Amino acid sequence: MGDKKALLYEGKAKQIYETGDPETVIVFFKDDATAFNAQKKGRVEQKGKMNNAITALVYEYLGKKGIETHFIEKLNNREQRVRKVSIVPLEVIVRNYAAGSMAKRLGVEEGVPCPETIFEICYKKDELGDPLINDHHAIFLGVASHEDLEMMYTLASRINDALKELFDRIDIILVDFKIELGKTTRNQIILADEISPDTCRLWDKKTLKKLDKDRFRRDLGEVTEAYVEIYERLKKVLEK
Amino acid sequence: MGDKKALLYEGKAKQIYETGDPETVIVFFKDDATAFNAQKKGRVEQKGKMNNAITALVYEYLGKKGIETHFIEKLNNREQRVRKVSIVPLEVIVRNYAAGSMAKRLGVEEGVPCPETIFEICYKKDELGDPLINDHHAIFLGVASHEDLEMMYTLASRINDALKELFDRIDIILVDFKIELGKTTRNQIILADEISPDTCRLWDKKTLKKLDKDRFRRDLGEVTEAYVEIYERLKKVLEK
Repeated sequence: MGDKKALLYEGKAKQIYETGDPETVIVFFKDDATAFNAQKKGRVEQKGKMNNAITALVYEYLGKKGIETHFIEKLNNREQRVRKVSIVPLEVIVRNYAAGSMAKRLGVEEGVPCPETIFEICYKKDELGDPLINDHHAIFLGVASHEDLEMMYTLASRINDALKELFDRIDIILVDFKIELGKTTRNQIILADEISPDTCRLWDKKTLKKLDKDRFRRDLGEVTEAYVEIYERLKKVLEK
Repeated sequence: MGDKKALLYEGKAKQIYETGDPETVIVFFKDDATAFNAQKKGRVEQKGKMNNAITALVYEYLGKKGIETHFIEKLNNREQRVRKVSIVPLEVIVRNYAAGSMAKRLGVEEGVPCPETIFEICYKKDELGDPLINDHHAIFLGVASHEDLEMMYTLASRINDALKELFDRIDIILVDFKIELGKTTRNQIILADEISPDTCRLWDKKTLKKLDKDRFRRDLGEVTEAYVEIYERLKKVLEK
C-alpha cells in the first residue's frame, strides 16, 4: 500500500508503520520467532503470512460477535491496517487447561482442565522477563486503573467464550491464549495485537497434537505445517 | 511443660508438639534461620526467645483489637501454647512500601510507598519455591475457596491496620509482613504462625535502619541486636 511511512516500532514478530492517517497504523507480520523471553530465536517459514491471515479471520469473527478490536482490514499477505492505540503494558493470559508457565509454577500436569477460567496478568517489561503480577501490582505500577482492569477481564472473558466456540467448531481445544489491549483516544479498551498460533495453545481435539508455537519452543518439528493447518481449518468455517 | 508430647512437625524456625489436649499444640521457637527458600542457612543467637516473646506480645495485642489468633499463652522462653488449626497452604503478604521480592519483580526501588496496600499470596510449596500466585490459581489448586480468600484478605487488612498503629508507636515503619492462616474445626480462618522480625520488614523511622531478618539475609550484621531492639521497644508499650 502506498501509504506505509516510517517504522514506528519493531517487536519480536511484527513491525508497526505510520501511515498518512494519524488514527491508523500498518502491521507487518514477520517470520521471526522467539521464545523464553527471546533466549531462543529462529524463523518459521510462512508464519508471518499465516498469522496475518489467521488474525484477520479471527478479528473479523470477534467483531461480528460485538467485540471491539483494532483490526480494520487485511492489506496483503503480510500486512493489515489497524487502529492506532496506546498499548496497555500488560499481557492478559486466559487459561482453560493447565499448560506452559502455569503448569510449571503450580507443579501440575499439562492438560488438567480448569474448572473456572484462569486469568493472569503479566507486566510487559523485557528486562524483567514479563513477570506474573497481580491487580495490586498493576495499580501500584500505574499501568492500569481498577476500572481498566475490570474492563480488561470482562473483555478477556468474552473473547474466551467466542474463541472456545470458534475453535470447537474446527475440532481444536483452546488450551490458553494471551491478548494485548490498547486504549483508544477516548480511553476505551479494545483488543489489539494478534490472535494466532503464536499467542494461543491449540491442541487437536482427537489426537491432542499441538498446533501452535509450542512446536517451535519445544523443537517438535512441523512448525509451519501447524500454522497452515490452523489457517486451513479456520478458513473453512469463516471465509464466505 | 509436662504435657509436651510427640513432635508433630518441624519447620525451618519452629517445632510443633502434640499435647494431651487434641485442640492445642505447643510451638517451640528455634534459633535456626534460613533465607531464599533455605538456600542460605544459619543461626541467630536468641532469635527463638525473641520471636516467641514478640509474637506473644503482638498476638495478645491483636486479640484485644478483636482479631482472632491461634495464640493461647506463652509457656516459657522458647514455647507457647496455641490452638491446633489446619494451616492454609498460602502465605499472605501485605506491603505498605516496596521491598524484597516485589521490588525486584516490578523493577522498583526499595522504600517506594504503596498508595494502596498491596496484598500477595504465595503457594506454600518448598519444591516450587513458594511461588507468587493469584486468586484464580488458589481456587484451581483447591487450597482456598472464594469465601476463604475474601476472609483472608479482610483479616490481613485488619491486621495491617492494627500493626501499623502499633509499630508507629515504637517509631518503626512497617514496610511489609507475611502471615499464615489456619482453619479451625468450625471452618473459621484465624491468624496462625508468628509475627516477628522473621516475618516482617521493620525499619527505624528516623535512621531507616533495618531491624528484621534482612540483616541475616543480606549479611548486614547486628542480627540479634535488631531482634532484641524490636522486643525492647514493643515491651515498653505493650507490657503492663
